[in-house]
Amino acid sequence: MPDCLFCMIASKQLPSSIVFEDEAVVIFNDIHPKAPTHVLIVPKTHVESILALDEATKDLPGLLILKAKQFAKEKGLRGYQLRFHVGREGGQIIDHLHLHLMSEQTI
Amino acid sequence: MPDCLFCMIASKQLPSSIVFEDEAVVIFNDIHPKAPTHVLIVPKTHVESILALDEATKDLPGLLILKAKQFAKEKGLRGYQLRFHVGREGGQIIDHLHLHLMSEQTI
Repeated sequence: MPDCLFCMIASKQLPSSIVFEDEAVVIFNDIHPKAPTHVLIVPKTHVESILALDEATKDLPGLLILKAKQFAKEKGLRGYQLRFHVGREGGQIIDHLHLHLMSEQTI
Repeated sequence: MPDCLFCMIASKQLPSSIVFEDEAVVIFNDIHPKAPTHVLIVPKTHVESILALDEATKDLPGLLILKAKQFAKEKGLRGYQLRFHVGREGGQIIDHLHLHLMSEQTI
Protein backbone atom coordinates (compact mmCIF):
# COMPACT_ATOMS: atom_id res chain seq x y z
CA MET A 1 0.00 0.00 0.00
CA PRO A 2 1.69 3.27 -1.10
CA ASP A 3 2.17 5.79 1.69
CA CYS A 4 1.70 3.16 4.41
CA LEU A 5 4.54 3.53 6.91
CA PHE A 6 4.58 -0.14 7.88
CA CYS A 7 4.40 -1.35 4.27
CA MET A 8 7.43 0.86 3.59
CA ILE A 9 9.28 -0.62 6.57
CA ALA A 10 8.40 -4.17 5.49
CA SER A 11 9.67 -3.51 1.96
CA LYS A 12 12.84 -1.75 3.27
CA GLN A 13 11.91 1.56 1.66
CA LEU A 14 12.16 3.00 5.16
CA PRO A 15 14.84 2.08 7.70
CA SER A 16 13.89 0.42 10.98
CA SER A 17 15.51 -1.92 13.46
CA ILE A 18 14.15 -5.23 12.24
CA VAL A 19 14.83 -8.03 14.73
CA PHE A 20 13.07 -10.85 12.87
CA GLU A 21 11.69 -11.45 9.40
CA ASP A 22 10.14 -14.34 7.50
CA GLU A 23 7.80 -14.72 4.52
CA ALA A 24 4.76 -13.46 6.44
CA VAL A 25 5.88 -10.90 9.01
CA VAL A 26 8.51 -8.42 10.10
CA ILE A 27 9.25 -7.69 13.75
CA PHE A 28 10.94 -4.43 14.68
CA ASN A 29 11.52 -2.24 17.72
CA ASP A 30 8.81 0.29 18.57
CA ILE A 31 10.19 3.77 17.99
CA HIS A 32 8.61 4.94 21.29
CA PRO A 33 9.14 1.95 23.59
CA LYS A 34 6.84 1.67 26.61
CA ALA A 35 8.77 -1.24 28.18
CA PRO A 36 12.38 -2.56 28.24
CA THR A 37 11.39 -4.80 25.33
CA HIS A 38 8.76 -3.39 22.98
CA VAL A 39 8.53 -4.76 19.47
CA LEU A 40 5.82 -4.71 16.82
CA ILE A 41 4.82 -7.84 14.92
CA VAL A 42 3.61 -6.68 11.51
CA PRO A 43 2.14 -8.73 8.65
CA LYS A 44 3.58 -8.09 5.19
CA THR A 45 0.00 -8.14 3.92
CA HIS A 46 -1.64 -4.74 4.27
CA VAL A 47 -4.75 -4.81 6.45
CA GLU A 48 -5.82 -1.64 8.23
CA SER A 49 -6.81 -3.05 11.58
CA ILE A 50 -8.77 -5.67 13.46
CA LEU A 51 -11.86 -3.74 12.33
CA ALA A 52 -11.00 -4.31 8.66
CA LEU A 53 -10.52 -8.09 8.80
CA ASP A 54 -12.49 -10.08 6.24
CA GLU A 55 -12.75 -13.70 5.16
CA ALA A 56 -9.37 -13.53 3.42
CA THR A 57 -7.51 -11.96 6.34
CA LYS A 58 -9.32 -13.22 9.43
CA ASP A 59 -6.49 -15.60 10.37
CA LEU A 60 -3.85 -12.85 10.52
CA PRO A 61 -4.28 -11.94 14.21
CA GLY A 62 -3.82 -15.57 15.27
CA LEU A 63 -0.73 -15.80 13.05
CA LEU A 64 0.76 -12.67 14.65
CA ILE A 65 0.18 -14.15 18.12
CA LEU A 66 1.98 -17.37 17.15
CA LYS A 67 4.87 -15.45 15.59
CA ALA A 68 5.13 -13.35 18.77
CA LYS A 69 5.15 -16.48 20.92
CA GLN A 70 7.89 -18.04 18.79
CA PHE A 71 9.97 -14.85 18.88
CA ALA A 72 9.59 -14.53 22.67
CA LYS A 73 10.64 -18.14 23.14
CA GLU A 74 13.73 -17.69 20.98
CA LYS A 75 14.66 -14.59 22.96
CA GLY A 76 14.14 -16.29 26.32
CA LEU A 77 11.28 -14.05 27.45
CA ARG A 78 9.44 -15.71 30.33
CA GLY A 79 6.64 -13.16 30.60
CA TYR A 80 5.17 -10.54 28.28
CA GLN A 81 2.03 -8.78 27.11
CA LEU A 82 0.54 -8.92 23.63
CA ARG A 83 -1.71 -6.03 22.60
CA PHE A 84 -3.77 -4.93 19.67
CA HIS A 85 -4.91 -1.30 19.67
CA VAL A 86 -8.12 -1.17 17.65
CA GLY A 87 -9.33 2.05 16.06
CA ARG A 88 -8.31 5.61 16.90
CA GLU A 89 -10.30 5.47 20.14
CA GLY A 90 -8.42 2.30 21.04
CA GLY A 91 -5.09 4.04 20.57
CA GLN A 92 -4.22 2.79 17.08
CA ILE A 93 -2.00 5.34 15.35
CA ILE A 94 -0.77 3.53 12.23
CA ASP A 95 -3.44 2.06 9.97
CA HIS A 96 -1.66 -1.22 9.30
CA LEU A 97 -2.51 -4.14 11.59
CA HIS A 98 0.21 -4.72 14.20
CA LEU A 99 0.66 -6.55 17.47
CA HIS A 100 2.62 -5.03 20.36
CA LEU A 101 4.85 -7.34 22.39
CA MET A 102 6.04 -5.79 25.65
CA SER A 103 8.21 -7.30 28.36
CA GLU A 104 9.94 -6.09 31.47
CA GLN A 105 12.89 -8.30 30.42
CA THR A 106 15.40 -7.05 27.87
CA ILE A 107 16.44 -8.99 24.80
CA MET B 1 -10.18 -28.77 34.67
CA PRO B 2 -11.10 -29.16 38.38
CA ASP B 3 -10.12 -26.21 40.55
CA CYS B 4 -9.74 -23.88 37.55
CA LEU B 5 -11.63 -20.68 38.33
CA PHE B 6 -12.45 -19.93 34.69
CA CYS B 7 -13.55 -23.52 33.95
CA MET B 8 -15.89 -23.20 36.93
CA ILE B 9 -17.26 -19.89 35.60
CA ALA B 10 -17.74 -21.37 32.12
CA SER B 11 -19.62 -24.36 33.54
CA LYS B 12 -21.73 -22.12 35.88
CA GLN B 13 -20.33 -23.75 39.02
CA LEU B 14 -19.25 -20.23 40.00
CA PRO B 15 -21.34 -17.10 39.48
CA SER B 16 -20.11 -14.31 37.20
CA SER B 17 -21.64 -11.61 35.05
CA ILE B 18 -21.61 -13.36 31.69
CA VAL B 19 -22.40 -10.93 28.86
CA PHE B 20 -22.04 -13.37 25.95
CA GLU B 21 -21.82 -17.12 25.48
CA ASP B 22 -21.67 -19.54 22.56
CA GLU B 23 -20.38 -23.04 22.00
CA ALA B 24 -16.72 -22.00 22.16
CA VAL B 25 -16.38 -19.08 24.57
CA VAL B 26 -17.83 -17.17 27.47
CA ILE B 27 -17.38 -13.42 27.88
CA PHE B 28 -17.80 -11.88 31.33
CA ASN B 29 -16.94 -8.68 33.16
CA ASP B 30 -13.52 -8.49 34.78
CA ILE B 31 -13.95 -8.47 38.55
CA HIS B 32 -11.32 -5.69 38.84
CA PRO B 33 -12.06 -3.49 35.79
CA LYS B 34 -9.24 -1.25 34.54
CA ALA B 35 -11.46 0.64 32.05
CA PRO B 36 -15.13 1.64 31.70
CA THR B 37 -15.60 -1.55 29.69
CA HIS B 38 -13.36 -4.47 30.67
CA VAL B 39 -14.44 -7.97 29.76
CA LEU B 40 -12.59 -11.27 29.45
CA ILE B 41 -13.03 -13.55 26.46
CA VAL B 42 -12.45 -17.10 27.70
CA PRO B 43 -12.41 -20.36 25.73
CA LYS B 44 -14.44 -23.23 27.17
CA THR B 45 -11.47 -25.47 26.38
CA HIS B 46 -8.90 -25.40 29.16
CA VAL B 47 -5.48 -24.19 28.01
CA GLU B 48 -3.15 -22.62 30.54
CA SER B 49 -1.78 -19.75 28.51
CA ILE B 50 -0.21 -18.66 25.24
CA LEU B 51 2.88 -20.50 26.47
CA ALA B 52 1.00 -23.80 26.61
CA LEU B 53 -0.47 -23.74 23.09
CA ASP B 54 0.14 -26.86 21.02
CA GLU B 55 -0.91 -28.19 17.63
CA ALA B 56 -4.44 -28.87 18.87
CA THR B 57 -4.97 -25.49 20.48
CA LYS B 58 -2.87 -23.09 18.40
CA ASP B 59 -5.92 -21.53 16.73
CA LEU B 60 -7.55 -20.49 20.02
CA PRO B 61 -5.95 -17.01 20.30
CA GLY B 62 -7.14 -16.08 16.81
CA LEU B 63 -10.62 -17.35 17.65
CA LEU B 64 -10.71 -15.23 20.82
CA ILE B 65 -9.72 -12.14 18.81
CA LEU B 66 -12.53 -12.74 16.31
CA LYS B 67 -15.07 -13.32 19.10
CA ALA B 68 -13.89 -10.08 20.75
CA LYS B 69 -14.24 -8.20 17.48
CA GLN B 70 -17.77 -9.55 16.96
CA PHE B 71 -18.76 -8.71 20.54
CA ALA B 72 -17.37 -5.16 20.26
CA LYS B 73 -19.23 -4.61 16.99
CA GLU B 74 -22.51 -5.78 18.50
CA LYS B 75 -21.99 -3.46 21.46
CA GLY B 76 -21.13 -0.48 19.25
CA LEU B 77 -17.56 -0.07 20.53
CA ARG B 78 -15.59 2.08 18.09
CA GLY B 79 -12.20 1.68 19.78
CA TYR B 80 -10.70 -0.80 22.21
CA GLN B 81 -7.60 -2.70 23.26
CA LEU B 82 -7.15 -6.46 23.19
CA ARG B 83 -4.53 -7.92 25.54
CA PHE B 84 -3.07 -11.26 26.44
CA HIS B 85 -0.97 -11.38 29.62
CA VAL B 86 1.50 -14.20 29.18
CA GLY B 87 3.11 -15.90 32.16
CA ARG B 88 3.39 -14.62 35.74
CA GLU B 89 6.03 -12.08 34.66
CA GLY B 90 3.63 -10.85 31.99
CA GLY B 91 0.91 -10.25 34.58
CA GLN B 92 -1.13 -13.42 34.05
CA ILE B 93 -2.90 -14.33 37.29
CA ILE B 94 -5.35 -17.07 36.27
CA ASP B 95 -3.87 -20.08 34.48
CA HIS B 96 -6.61 -20.39 31.87
CA LEU B 97 -6.07 -18.60 28.55
CA HIS B 98 -8.07 -15.35 28.36
CA LEU B 99 -8.17 -12.20 26.29
CA HIS B 100 -8.82 -8.80 27.88
CA LEU B 101 -11.01 -6.35 25.96
CA MET B 102 -10.83 -2.81 27.34
CA SER B 103 -12.57 0.30 26.09
CA GLU B 104 -13.06 3.85 27.28
CA GLN B 105 -16.66 3.55 26.07
CA THR B 106 -19.29 1.88 28.23
CA ILE B 107 -21.59 -0.89 27.02
